[in-house]
Amino acid sequence: MRVLVNISYNGRDFSGFQYQHDYRTVQGTIEKQLKRMHKTFVRIHASSRTDAGVHALNQYFHFDTEIDLPPEKWKFILNRAMPKDILINDVSIAADDFHSRFDAKGKTYRYKVYTGEKNPFYDGLKTHYPYKLDISKMKEAMAPFIGTHDFTTFSSAKAEITNKVRTITAFEVTETPDGYEFTITGTGFLYNMVRVLTAYVLECGRGIRTPDTLNMIAAKDRTVIPKTAPAEGLYLEKVWYEKL
Amino acid sequence: MRVLVNISYNGRDFSGFQYQHDYRTVQGTIEKQLKRMHKTFVRIHASSRTDAGVHALNQYFHFDTEIDLPPEKWKFILNRAMPKDILINDVSIAADDFHSRFDAKGKTYRYKVYTGEKNPFYDGLKTHYPYKLDISKMKEAMAPFIGTHDFTTFSSAKAEITNKVRTITAFEVTETPDGYEFTITGTGFLYNMVRVLTAYVLECGRGIRTPDTLNMIAAKDRTVIPKTAPAEGLYLEKVWYEKL
Repeated sequence: MRVLVNISYNGRDFSGFQYQHDYRTVQGTIEKQLKRMHKTFVRIHASSRTDAGVHALNQYFHFDTEIDLPPEKWKFILNRAMPKDILINDVSIAADDFHSRFDAKGKTYRYKVYTGEKNPFYDGLKTHYPYKLDISKMKEAMAPFIGTHDFTTFSSAKAEITNKVRTITAFEVTETPDGYEFTITGTGFLYNMVRVLTAYVLECGRGIRTPDTLNMIAAKDRTVIPKTAPAEGLYLEKVWYEKL
Repeated sequence: MRVLVNISYNGRDFSGFQYQHDYRTVQGTIEKQLKRMHKTFVRIHASSRTDAGVHALNQYFHFDTEIDLPPEKWKFILNRAMPKDILINDVSIAADDFHSRFDAKGKTYRYKVYTGEKNPFYDGLKTHYPYKLDISKMKEAMAPFIGTHDFTTFSSAKAEITNKVRTITAFEVTETPDGYEFTITGTGFLYNMVRVLTAYVLECGRGIRTPDTLNMIAAKDRTVIPKTAPAEGLYLEKVWYEKL
């Protein structure tokens, strides 16, 4: 039986999603609990391996099990075993050939920035960018990303994938009482891509860079955008599947 | 010259205010920086030694220094050296006989509770109390605290102070979108007093205890209120001085 789980987590105290020996990770935390229940190791497969410090509002993972429990019971048992920074939102039974990563049709990320004085209570939860931002300049920088492009300029030079073409379907910014939140939806994202895009848009908003997005994309050169926005402002907001 | 500093801190990652060898404390963090500036140890004196996990919105401390800097410069230098979970709000020059602790005329604490589903992003910042609360019962439990009472029932049995008479001047509760916030003002508080009072009021709100405050106070017996609300919901909100 394939079990599909939707979770939220506060990434602040995790060394990312993916299992690492000797580090506290989301995967390690969950697999430890599943091993306790199954008396044997059970691997989980997530839609997205978020980096250290990155949060999730709706992350998915699946696993296979012989334990036959109704979804509500799974939810209850798993939630009871989770630490305070992980919440099980929902559990469902998936088709045996469903894969939380390969079946994902798209993802939405949110990036949270606050611009006023440093707030100790946002530590780990929002990025502090203490500058006056021009929202029209940010929108001007963001709009040309919509569509299908080679995102070499906007991904980590460390990315091993050779095909860097991705499709962005939405990229929006909204003002909050003390800053801005960006949401971006696409068919897929390269390593660090949302954080590099955000760093570029913030520099345009701050006025230390002139929006020139199409030329930046055309450059296919990571070195023209040297910044990566911090992990703490990034949230995996939604994973889109055909049937969910 | 006596320098008076107003700070905020997120208590989540501190083992309290007071210096402890081998633990991360607010006092230790600040004294380390002052030592760097002065090339010698400089002791700070706080208005209140908040416990591990307790936050401060406006905590005060003072120290004596030979370094003659204008307040704004102190603020700038100290803020630059602070970690992300401490903010220097304000610096002023105090009279040589001013003492941040002994001159405090009163304090206000805030306690934050949320009552819905667990929220991983509140971890360390609000107390999760997932019960329906009756605000009228809470107000009924709170009102009789106003005035001067012996608070033996409502303080840690570990408290070494023998005079447990304190005056409470205000105790209020407000609804928030997902819970309640309590503010309490008094001339002084015993060890754990706000957290024990809050635990009692929450139990009255939840209906597992009937408000009977005057009898509880009269009992002068800590064992009649066995609970202490968690540190994470508690904020030192304001310290009242004659001249500030």
